[in-house]
Amino acid sequence: MTLTLLGISGSLRRGSYSTKLLKAARRLAPEGVQVDLFDLAPIPLYNDDVRAEGLPEPVQALREAIRAADGLILATPEYNHSFSGVLKNAIDWASRPPEQPFDGKPIGLISSSPGPLGGVRAFQALRLVFPFLNGRVLNRPAVSVGQVNTRFAEDGTLTDDDTAGFLRQLIDALAAEAERSR
Amino acid sequence: MTLTLLGISGSLRRGSYSTKLLKAARRLAPEGVQVDLFDLAPIPLYNDDVRAEGLPEPVQALREAIRAADGLILATPEYNHSFSGVLKNAIDWASRPPEQPFDGKPIGLISSSPGPLGGVRAFQALRLVFPFLNGRVLNRPAVSVGQVNTRFAEDGTLTDDDTAGFLRQLIDALAAEAERSR
Amino acid sequence: MTLTLLGISGSLRRGSYSTKLLKAARRLAPEGVQVDLFDLAPIPLYNDDVRAEGLPEPVQALREAIRAADGLILATPEYNHSFSGVLKNAIDWASRPPEQPFDGKPIGLISSSPGPLGGVRAFQALRLVFPFLNGRVLNRPAVSVGQVNTRFAEDGTLTDDDTAGFLRQLIDALAAEAERSR
Amino acid sequence: MTLTLLGISGSLRRGSYSTKLLKAARRLAPEGVQVDLFDLAPIPLYNDDVRAEGLPEPVQALREAIRAADGLILATPEYNHSFSGVLKNAIDWASRPPEQPFDGKPIGLISSSPGPLGGVRAFQALRLVFPFLNGRVLNRPAVSVGQVNTRFAEDGTLTDDDTAGFLRQLIDALAAEAERSR
Repeated sequence: MTLTLLGISGSLRRGSYSTKLLKAARRLAPEGVQVDLFDLAPIPLYNDDVRAEGLPEPVQALREAIRAADGLILATPEYNHSFSGVLKNAIDWASRPPEQPFDGKPIGLISSSPGPLGGVRAFQALRLVFPFLNGRVLNRPAVSVGQVNTRFAEDGTLTDDDTAGFLRQLIDALAAEAERSR
Repeated sequence: MTLTLLGISGSLRRGSYSTKLLKAARRLAPEGVQVDLFDLAPIPLYNDDVRAEGLPEPVQALREAIRAADGLILATPEYNHSFSGVLKNAIDWASRPPEQPFDGKPIGLISSSPGPLGGVRAFQALRLVFPFLNGRVLNRPAVSVGQVNTRFAEDGTLTDDDTAGFLRQLIDALAAEAERSR
Repeated sequence: MTLTLLGISGSLRRGSYSTKLLKAARRLAPEGVQVDLFDLAPIPLYNDDVRAEGLPEPVQALREAIRAADGLILATPEYNHSFSGVLKNAIDWASRPPEQPFDGKPIGLISSSPGPLGGVRAFQALRLVFPFLNGRVLNRPAVSVGQVNTRFAEDGTLTDDDTAGFLRQLIDALAAEAERSR
Repeated sequence: MTLTLLGISGSLRRGSYSTKLLKAARRLAPEGVQVDLFDLAPIPLYNDDVRAEGLPEPVQALREAIRAADGLILATPEYNHSFSGVLKNAIDWASRPPEQPFDGKPIGLISSSPGPLGGVRAFQALRLVFPFLNGRVLNRPAVSVGQVNTRFAEDGTLTDDDTAGFLRQLIDALAAEAERSR
């Protein structure tokens, strides 16, 4: 049976490194694990009046994709010592009542930055969000990629073996946690 | 000379308590202090490709309003133990190079919740965002309003004297910090 | 077979509410679950020169008690919007190489305060400590007890049914997580 | 008139890099600024029963030293993604009623680590502590020193020009903030 992991990038930029890292994870996934990507571009800004009238179609699609997945991979740049507002906005939409799809879901984290720190402060902020939603955020590995602009070939292929190894570990850990959570 | 404080609500809902608290602050401001409100509804999701082509008009307006203000009042609901993605998205837009308008700016915080905790966890998350931007977030008062749904009359007027007092203190502290920062 | 949970109080005060809550948990534990308490009073301030010469006996005892336990209950007051330095100091000692005993350990959190907020900001700070150590901090329940000074009889017995219920849920959740982790 | 800055190291190890960085700051201080160091080794674990009977002499000395200083420099290693328990314990003691000496005090932060990240997560945790105490923690510079073990000569002299420059900036910024706060 195939496990499905849903990758969500906190950056909408076409050349986003967060998105590239998720695509690399998709290629690196072992047999039996499928990584799908969800594009946050069509998600509107959260507005509770809109929610009350009925969830916008892209939000509904996001919630269903999260619900259907065996685990999530959230990849985010670090903006202002935190994760992106684009990702927080998506989490806010997905988490609203009646039933929220993060409950019990294994979640793996990726951050990256052109500088040496790899966006680790984005992890701190992200980790504080999920206890309320009962998301099962993995302690390890949390994949932080510094100098991310040097890790890819021009065609977008990941060329850095260390990063590839960490991504594989993340996928394996998510798969193991998904098995435990069943 | 008049001091101008810019109030930004992290909620787009028409009946938003965050917005109502800012409107109450506007009414409570003493002579010589003017509180303006900026509506985040027209701000798009952050996309760096869009930014590279030129800032969208509402983003430019946001940046100019922040730059022109002597201080900011950020009012946010607590979603998932943090502040709203709508507000983070606006901060992400406003903070991008070339020059970001938060530098040295006095910032006051308001959070609220229908429950008893008043959204204090949103403060924790918000405070971690501004050191990078050199925003001068006030330690005190940080106005957290619990049971916020009981604090207003039907026409939206603030009826709670304690909350009114805290809002006045916040305005006074921002005005004092703005004087110090000149 | 009996599960053992180790309760550690972040307060050394004789009348500490954190300690009282752990004693209440001990009394409330169902058959098959034993709650032991570890007293942090004899733990010295962390000093790496001392560590290099050999772990002090109380530190060794702490590490062994953590290692032997099937799960931990950490109960802390909130000091300065975080958990107590006494508890952080104990975690620092227990976590040093060669092998640290938090790895994979289920951990439940209790905070309390005389005020209405119940010390929830202590949770935020505590949760950020354990990813590095791979402690499995439970999302739920995190037991925060406001007005904690009103919850006990003069002889120290817990008189508040809601709090008793939350403590029982915490024990059950730790027991379940301990089973899963085996 | 001379400004006095009080340096407090969160590490008790004789060869502590945090302490060495404070000693380097002492040597680098310009005319008119004096950096004193306070040793936390004699501070006991916080115990509110002890406090109620009268502050231990080393705690009294700490409080008076903080009160007398025009600003503080807190230097800490990063332990478990936070600052040291030794430092938190000292803050807990110093901050207890009747009057706490952090109120309005300019505070500069230094963290360090042998690894590349320089202990930046310790900053996140430290910054959340001082709003309650109304400490004026500087946004910039927050001096994080990676590969700290390579920055000193055998006799403990700082040999790294970049780090020296950051320390000088920190002293200047604290002096400026102390002037503003008067």
